[in-house]
Formats: sequence, C-alpha cells, structure tokens
Amino acid sequence: MTEMPFLMLDDRNDSGAPLYRQIYEAFRGAILSGKLAAGTRLPASRVLAEQLSVARLTVVNAYEQLLAEGYTEGKTGAGTFVASKLPDDLLQIAPPAKNAEIPLQPPAAPRISKFARRVRETRGELARYQNSLDVVPFKNGMTAVGEFPFGVWEKLAARVYRRARYRIAGYGATAGYRPLREAVAAHFAASRGVRCRTEQIFITNGAQQALDLIARVLLDAGDRVRIEDPCYQEARAVFEATGAEIVPVPVDAEGFDPDAAQTDGESARLVYVTPSHQYPTGVTMTLARRLRLLEWARRTGAWIVEDDYNSEFRYTGRPLASLQNLDHGGRVLYVGTFSKTIFPALRLGCLIVPENLIDVFTAARSLADWHSPVFDQATLAEFIAEGHFARHLRKMRALYEKRQHFLVAEAEKELSGLVKLTKASSGMHLIGWLAPGLDAAKIALKARETGLHLSPLSSYCIAAKLPEGLIFGYTGFDEKQIREGVAKLKKVLESGE
Amino acid sequence: MTEMPFLMLDDRNDSGAPLYRQIYEAFRGAILSGKLAAGTRLPASRVLAEQLSVARLTVVNAYEQLLAEGYTEGKTGAGTFVASKLPDDLLQIAPPAKNAEIPLQPPAAPRISKFARRVRETRGELARYQNSLDVVPFKNGMTAVGEFPFGVWEKLAARVYRRARYRIAGYGATAGYRPLREAVAAHFAASRGVRCRTEQIFITNGAQQALDLIARVLLDAGDRVRIEDPCYQEARAVFEATGAEIVPVPVDAEGFDPDAAQTDGESARLVYVTPSHQYPTGVTMTLARRLRLLEWARRTGAWIVEDDYNSEFRYTGRPLASLQNLDHGGRVLYVGTFSKTIFPALRLGCLIVPENLIDVFTAARSLADWHSPVFDQATLAEFIAEGHFARHLRKMRALYEKRQHFLVAEAEKELSGLVKLTKASSGMHLIGWLAPGLDAAKIALKARETGLHLSPLSSYCIAAKLPEGLIFGYTGFDEKQIREGVAKLKKVLESGE
Repeated sequence: MTEMPFLMLDDRNDSGAPLYRQIYEAFRGAILSGKLAAGTRLPASRVLAEQLSVARLTVVNAYEQLLAEGYTEGKTGAGTFVASKLPDDLLQIAPPAKNAEIPLQPPAAPRISKFARRVRETRGELARYQNSLDVVPFKNGMTAVGEFPFGVWEKLAARVYRRARYRIAGYGATAGYRPLREAVAAHFAASRGVRCRTEQIFITNGAQQALDLIARVLLDAGDRVRIEDPCYQEARAVFEATGAEIVPVPVDAEGFDPDAAQTDGESARLVYVTPSHQYPTGVTMTLARRLRLLEWARRTGAWIVEDDYNSEFRYTGRPLASLQNLDHGGRVLYVGTFSKTIFPALRLGCLIVPENLIDVFTAARSLADWHSPVFDQATLAEFIAEGHFARHLRKMRALYEKRQHFLVAEAEKELSGLVKLTKASSGMHLIGWLAPGLDAAKIALKARETGLHLSPLSSYCIAAKLPEGLIFGYTGFDEKQIREGVAKLKKVLESGE
Repeated sequence: MTEMPFLMLDDRNDSGAPLYRQIYEAFRGAILSGKLAAGTRLPASRVLAEQLSVARLTVVNAYEQLLAEGYTEGKTGAGTFVASKLPDDLLQIAPPAKNAEIPLQPPAAPRISKFARRVRETRGELARYQNSLDVVPFKNGMTAVGEFPFGVWEKLAARVYRRARYRIAGYGATAGYRPLREAVAAHFAASRGVRCRTEQIFITNGAQQALDLIARVLLDAGDRVRIEDPCYQEARAVFEATGAEIVPVPVDAEGFDPDAAQTDGESARLVYVTPSHQYPTGVTMTLARRLRLLEWARRTGAWIVEDDYNSEFRYTGRPLASLQNLDHGGRVLYVGTFSKTIFPALRLGCLIVPENLIDVFTAARSLADWHSPVFDQATLAEFIAEGHFARHLRKMRALYEKRQHFLVAEAEKELSGLVKLTKASSGMHLIGWLAPGLDAAKIALKARETGLHLSPLSSYCIAAKLPEGLIFGYTGFDEKQIREGVAKLKKVLESGE
C-alpha cells in the first residue's frame, strides 16, 4: 500500500473536527497539492482503519465524502482511486494544512466599483469610527435607553409572536407591514401635519436606508445636489457616494436659503433640508423660505428631501408642521426615524414619497433587501396603536428638556468664560460656542482621549465659516454623566490646548 | 372685524382634529390662498371665541401656532396681522381644504436615476407580484413556518430583551452582532467547510442585501458579469440594475462551465454561481469545474459570488463543501441566508468576504442602513449557540424530504403521462418536466387562476433552451396542501391548454 505520511490524526482532537473529517481533509489536501497523483489507489478502508486505530466506519465515511466531492473514483471491487479528471495544472495550489488556518490574501488593492471607491474615501474613517459603540458624553443622537419601557415592548413582542406567528413569519410586503404603515400615517399626520395616503409610506431600516434609497432612485453621477452648509454628515455621505456634485447652500437665521439655490443660475436635481430643526445649527426654516423652496422645486422639477430627524423633541411651543404639509406639487420626500424615539438597535424608520414614485421605490426597496423584519414592525405597530409611543414621547420630552437645562446650568457653573451653551426649544443637542482663541477640533481630539465624545461644528461645514463650536448631545446621559462629562471637559480646557 | 366666511368649524368633529387645529387650518388656508391679504388684522381672540362659541384659549392656541409658523405677525397691543413677508406669488397655491384630502400629483413621469429606470424595467412587475403574499402551492422558497419552534424562539427573545436590553439597545456594529458572527462562523465552518475569520463575516438583511451590496461594491455600469443560465432571477435583477453587461453561461450536468467563460476571449468582473445546488436545475458543480473556476478567477482578478442558498437541505449523502472552502486566492464572496432555515420574516442572512474587502464592505453597509436589528441578531445567536438551530435543521431535513417524496408519489399517481417529477437529493423544489406538447408558461398562467403558484422553467432562462418544465416548491406545504395542489393542477392539465 501507498505510504500516507500526510495522515497525522489529531489525537487530542484540538481542532474539534470529527476524525472522519480529519482523514477526509488530509486526503483532500494531498490530492490538491499533487502528493497523491491521479490514479493512485487509496488503501482499503479496513487496512487504513487498523493502521490509524480508528473504526472502519470512520474511514468509510471519509472515503464517501471524497468520492461524493469528486476527489476520488470508485471502481466496484477494485478499490478507490484518486480521480483522473482533476486538471493537473490546478493541483499546484497548496491548500492550508488545517481548516483553522487562514488562507493568505493577495496584498494588491482589490478591484472595486466607482461607488465603492467614493464610499471608501468619504466614509472609510467614519465607518470605522462608528464601529466604536461606546456611548460616552456628549455623543449625539443617543437615547435614554434606560428609560424605554422594555417591559411593555417585550409583552407586545411576545403577544405578536404568539398571535401572529404563522400569519406573518413568511415574506412580507416590500413597503412594510400594513398596520404599521397605517399607524405611522396617523402619527405623522397628527404630530407633523404630514398629508399622505398609506400607500405612499415605506417602512425602512432607519432613516439611513431611506436616504440611501432616495439617492439611488433619484440621482445619477454628475447630478447637482444642494445640501445645507453645515450639513448632517450621513446625508452628505449618501449623496456623495452617488457621484453627484454637492453644492453647499448657506444656512442663516432663517434656515436654508432657497434664493441662493435660484440665483446662481444653475438648477439642481435634489435638495436636502432639515427644516424643523436644522442639523446641526438648530435653526427653523421660516415659512416664507419654505414656500419659496417648494415653488422653486415645482418650477424646476427638483426633488426636496425633508429629513425630519428629531422633530418629536420640541420642548416649548408647538412643533411646526412639516414642509411636506405645504407641498402641493408632489416634490417632497419625507424621512422619519424611530431610532431616536424607540431605540436605535431597532433599525426602523419611514419614507413618505410622492404618488408617482411609489412604484419605483417599491422596486428599488425589494431589490435592496425585500423588506424590514416583520415581527419588529408588528410590535412597533402595537406600541403606537396602544398609545405607548405617545406616552413615551411625552416622558422623553420632559426628561430631555430637563437634561438640556441641567447641561446648560453645569456649563454655566463650570465652563463659564470658556464654553457658552444656550437653551434651545427643541432637539437632542446644543452647540457649545467656544471663547475666542479656542480651537474646537483640537479640543475634541483631546477630549476623546479622556473618554468624551464632542464633534467640532467645523466637521459639519463644507464652505461655511462658523465660529468655533462643539456639539453636545445630552439626551443619552443622566445628570451624573453630564456633570462628570462637564468636569472632564473643564480639565481638558484648563490644561491648555 | 373682518368677515371670516372660511371659518366653518366641524361641530361633529368628524375630522378628529382638535378645535384649535381647525381654526389654525382655516386661517392658514385663507392666508395661503390669498383670501386674507398681507397686513389683514385678525379678530381679537375673545371676539372670535364668542362668535365661534369656543373657549378663548382655543383661539389663542390657534393664533400662537399661526404666529410660530410665520403666517401672522403680532404687534404688542395692536393685535395680530397676516404676515407681510409672505411672497405674493406663492399665495396662489391653493392648499387642500381638509387635512385628509390628498394633494394632486403631477401626471408627468418623474425624473429618476438610470439605476431606477433599470430597476423599474427589470423588476417592476416582479416587485408588484412579490407584494402578493399568498403562500400557495407550489410557491418556491417557502418554509414550514408551522413547524418552527416559536415557543423556544420567543423564550430566547424575551431573555435577550430582559438581560441585554440596556447593553444592546443603542447603535450596533455595522458588520453585525459579534456573538452572532461567531456562531455563524462556527456553523458554516462545520456545515459548509467555510474558512474565514469572524471579521470577514457580515450579518445582512437576508441574502438579497448581500447580493445588492456585492453589486454596488464590485460592479460599474458596463462591467461584464457572468451568470448561470438558467439563473436565480433575484440575483440577475441585482446585477442588471447596476448597468453591468450580463453574459449567460450554460449550465450542464456538471454545473456552471468555467471554460465557456474562458474561451470566448473576454474576461468578466464577476461570476455568480450556485455550486452546491444550481438554481433552478439542481445540478451540483463538479470539483474539476470548481477548481478551474477558482484558477480562472485568480488569474484574471474576477470575483466569484457563491450563493449557497439552500445547501442546508441535503437529504441523502453528506453536503459538499462550499466553493469558498477551496478558494486560496481570496476571490470568493460567500452568501448565506437564514430565511430558509429560520423564517423569511426575520430578514437575516450573511456575507463572507475576502480579507481585503472588509473595509469597503463595512463602509458600504453603514451607508446603506448601518446594521441589522440587534435584538433579532442576539436571539438568533442564542438559537444557534444553544443547539436549537441544528435540531430544527435536522427536523426540517426529515420533513422536507418526506414532503418531496410525497409530492413525487402524488404526481406519479395523478399526473402520470403529463408531468414527470424525480426525487432529488437536496433543495426545496423539484422541476416537473412536461409531456411533449405542453406549454409551461401557459399552464403556469392558468394554474395561477386556480390559486396555484408554478413558475415555468423558461422564466429563469436567458439564452438557454431547456425542455418545458415547471418549478414545484414543496417545503412550505403539508401533505393535504400538496395533494390538493396536484389535484388542481391535474384539472388544469386535463382541461387542455
């Protein structure tokens, strides 16, 4: 019989692989590397079993697997042979000796698409950073997860699993679970004055997917996109990834300026705005500008994306109606999210599109990932329908306002003369304006070393030149965390830049 | 005081809107339509309240809202006036009289992207069709949802909610919940021989999102993509949507033929294959062809997408190792799904990429929708780790094999001479070969009218000319449903085409 020096069984079985698998792997490796030539006869299973001190069935199993995968050929009564059909020139690729060993990867830069090159360039850093999931003061967009009524949510989820499981466990509707779409329509009609039929509503995997779908469906490389300057970075990244030409439009005390978009002589395919509470400046777009923007879009055929990301958190006065409410030309795509009002891990948001875009968004969404998980959608539908959502929002509004006031008070007490924070009537963050001579980017970097997360206002700017400021998210942190965060920042500021 | 004829309160309050909101809407409508000119003085709140027989606070609330939104201006002590800053030319856009009324949409075709036009063209029909969610025999890819251990799943989900809620309710890692990625790595290493580090694994929203991400990251318009012919339609749609040139490669008894891809003189950026169980023919790609395909990809720098969509369901013999297992050039992207093994509504799948694509896929995934829902991922991780997944798979393998045999037996009994079904060693569907003279497309159409779902084999073909056949999915249907389905089909066949 042929010598089989490659057959070294792992007695201690460190690899965790069953014995038959080890035998199979050893033969396979030997065949692929050419150690066992085509036509070589394998030892009889009984003989090999004795030699290896294993049960004969173990060897038989390994041989069957080799046969099934085409590594060997069996001639009835004549034994098992290495397959003759294996192309010789392929057998030189040495496979790794062990299953656990990681194949070497080519060092060359991989060939990727233009989209991917843009994404890697504009987003590589961001994505890596976002994978650091620490929730530290004053990271923006965090919610008070400890205050979420998980008890209620769990009960509703369990009820959905029990009652609806066989009915909804299959594939669902692309645009979303119908009862949730209806609940969302009612909610946004009441709270945001959104006017739409249920058919216009898509349930998405958070606002991010809504923005991505919008960019894919409405933009080609080279199209002009007007965005606010400063701008929400995630939205900017999505539009940049399409290869569109990004045209920053200044934001002043009245919000996005549609006249700037009209007077420079060139049109745009799409405009991205956050009219309720401009991100990150917090400015509310005035009615006059809203009307002018809508009229401009109607005249030029441009699309308007209204990102209504945190309009639910208004602490004083009534929330302003959405821009979508004023749109009678079918130009506005309304983006909402439940990441800030339920919890981020849920990954549910919504997109409301004009009538004549329903079909194409349905097609694009089904291509992207069919639909959002149905049980989560059903649980959220119940949560809204039974009034828990409204109750939670009320509670969070009060809590977040309190946290905001606490942050302002702490900053007044501890950071006076260094950072100026002013109360705001809505939102989840404040801008801390720095005293002359302080550099926000440098401070943010130093603060990060001490376990604080502060973004410089400049990181949201494209062409805009704004005074030095830092973004303080406050909603995700209790008074103790805020106090400690402010104290840490004080040390950073006092240690000099 | 000015006459306010537009002020008709809905006494019965059919609209459900609070009274202050009705007053606000009426004024707003009158201002926007020009009925109330700029500078017009609004009646004193007390006076209007008396006139309308409502509480004064109701009117005050409405006025405050108008003021806050910029429709009116208040001069202290001088009353409230329609804002002078509203641009006259915008006031002609008549708003709908009621919130519930739907704005008219422009009839013109909307301006959409090239991607969207391709998607609408290739997928419009499909998406609409997929929105019909009826699970009727012999729809393919359906699972036996009634057999899924929802009791266990619910218990694990409840436990995850209770134990981990505050820890995982925030934003999660882009590539997926780490314990699930580890469980997936272990599962696919054991069951499919997949060799990878955990870092190479992305948890996706089903296999569909994995395919879409691959297409976006690796393909530009005009790139050549070789796909199997016949081919899984969803994959084809994803690649077509990028604007890539689709090159069909014939499938024969040895599976996808890599030599056809080499000898026609032109290379390709990407190859899409289902080597374990070709969809829809069920052919297994031979080892020799796998090795040649890998060698070709290594030489030309092409990517190989291995869609291992239902390899878990092998009824006889051991499952063959994946193509990824043989890849030492870092060319294979492996796509797996839990839609067929857990339940489709869950929307979880996985994508395993070569090392040098980890960064760019992380960036692209975070752009698309950040990450999959974390609680669902955590529940699935526990389901796998505690052995429920393996147990369920074993149970389903036995059940699906039984269903397949039952279908074959029923067809033999009832459809003899008309449709020929042959047992297969794996998969979730069979091809029913039609007797000469029968037209699969016509029969499928007629069958649909009687509540049956059968796809003609030709609908998967690009250039391939195959005998007339129908796709019978059997996994989602019990014996009663299969028997009734066969009986219905018999009637259709006997009624003549």
